Amino acid sequence: MYILVTNDDGIDSAGIHALVQAMRRIGDVVVVAPDRQQSAVGHALTVASPLRATPFHRNGEVFGFAINGTPADCVKLGVSTLLDRRPDIVVSGINHGSNTSVNAIYSGTVSAATEGTLMGIPSMAVSLATFDHTADMSLAADVAYDVASRLLDLQLPAGTLLNVNVPPVAKADFKGLRITRQGHNEWKDAYDVRIDPQGRPYYWLTGEFVTVRELVDGDDAVVANGYAAITPIHYELTNFSILETLRSHPALSEICSREPNEGRS
Amino acid sequence: MYILVTNDDGIDSAGIHALVQAMRRIGDVVVVAPDRQQSAVGHALTVASPLRATPFHRNGEVFGFAINGTPADCVKLGVSTLLDRRPDIVVSGINHGSNTSVNAIYSGTVSAATEGTLMGIPSMAVSLATFDHTADMSLAADVAYDVASRLLDLQLPAGTLLNVNVPPVAKADFKGLRITRQGHNEWKDAYDVRIDPQGRPYYWLTGEFVTVRELVDGDDAVVANGYAAITPIHYELTNFSILETLRSHPALSEICSREPNEGRS
Repeated sequence: MYILVTNDDGIDSAGIHALVQAMRRIGDVVVVAPDRQQSAVGHALTVASPLRATPFHRNGEVFGFAINGTPADCVKLGVSTLLDRRPDIVVSGINHGSNTSVNAIYSGTVSAATEGTLMGIPSMAVSLATFDHTADMSLAADVAYDVASRLLDLQLPAGTLLNVNVPPVAKADFKGLRITRQGHNEWKDAYDVRIDPQGRPYYWLTGEFVTVRELVDGDDAVVANGYAAITPIHYELTNFSILETLRSHPALSEICSREPNEGRS
Repeated sequence: MYILVTNDDGIDSAGIHALVQAMRRIGDVVVVAPDRQQSAVGHALTVASPLRATPFHRNGEVFGFAINGTPADCVKLGVSTLLDRRPDIVVSGINHGSNTSVNAIYSGTVSAATEGTLMGIPSMAVSLATFDHTADMSLAADVAYDVASRLLDLQLPAGTLLNVNVPPVAKADFKGLRITRQGHNEWKDAYDVRIDPQGRPYYWLTGEFVTVRELVDGDDAVVANGYAAITPIHYELTNFSILETLRSHPALSEICSREPNEGRS
């Protein structure tokens, strides 16, 4: 097994170090990761500036390529250009902080795994559901090992990846793994308005992650109950359930059925 | 109607100017948009630095707030903090370049509309399917008017927004609107490797947008045929079709059913 490891916390983070050690139990590991913290970058790509790939050392040996870009950049550049052979799987993480519910759409960790899937490679993201940067990564690394070592056996359909979230509990309190759906928790956003010494306002994003509608098999609820949540996600965004409703909706059928140019201003 | 307009090409772009003029035919318009080009930022949020909101002038009058952030930042900051009342709809665009198929996941334009939806406001994104920055925006502005003026009537389900893509054709050649699904076109990625004057490589993202599997009702195919494509999308990422398969998959059931700590290293 040849395993591409990346993340969004940066190549020097504790999470990617723990993940690499776990993946080395499965096969050969190559690391291509951002050279700095890239949280909440979503599925950003660097298009207006060139990328650099710099060897990054840890404990006196080359740990991987540090990239001046986003997690998605790392996977695209790694697979297409830097690596001399195609990875069998892509594993992204271990992220400091939950990527459950809507967090998945803001997550660089998840976007890197999505990029692997887009390139036709079975991929997964792993996150530890705590922002405590001193948190013990060993349970999350065990879970990453358990799932990654079976990832090829699962024969996921094209376009589907696994989003794995691990509870911040001691191993003795860990309850096991569950297959889940994306939860419905939401951010209640707020900005902290401050005034600079010149008297001008500036705005810091703050917010509270709240349970709007509890889903028993949602990733948030399952993680809160001490299980690791494995959610199969894809980048098919169409809401198929309303296609026909929209096609026959009076407000739209009026403009959809209109002859070209008729009534246009 | 109180309409929040944003985009990802920046507050000084031709596309947002054309969109604002179209929206003023529907109601009161407020602009909160990035102070510079933000293409391919995905659903990025600014969390590690504070935001600023600066009045931006056009033709001697205040056009809107310019934000040193992403399209998603603009909607979050605008709705939660800058605006004195809640917008009735959020309209993002007009983007220079198609946001069909997988482009939707890289798109700042779409992410801004997604953010509006997350905040409970009916939202839509509008893109003109050409990268020609001198392209005529008037057809796309007409389509934006047609759809936005009916957006509240559609009573979209919570979490669903409209992703509208307009073909780069003359009005005389425009064939009308179609309700579509997200297409399956993909980027065939490549990096142009160059050597700097110090002899070190750097990498420019290039790529070709290719048709992998043509979907008759996919947004790309419909736009290519001269129609505007209206795709209802949502941020529910779960692939429900494989949940049960995974739950009963031998490779996973082994670890999912395992008692806590049993066999864990």
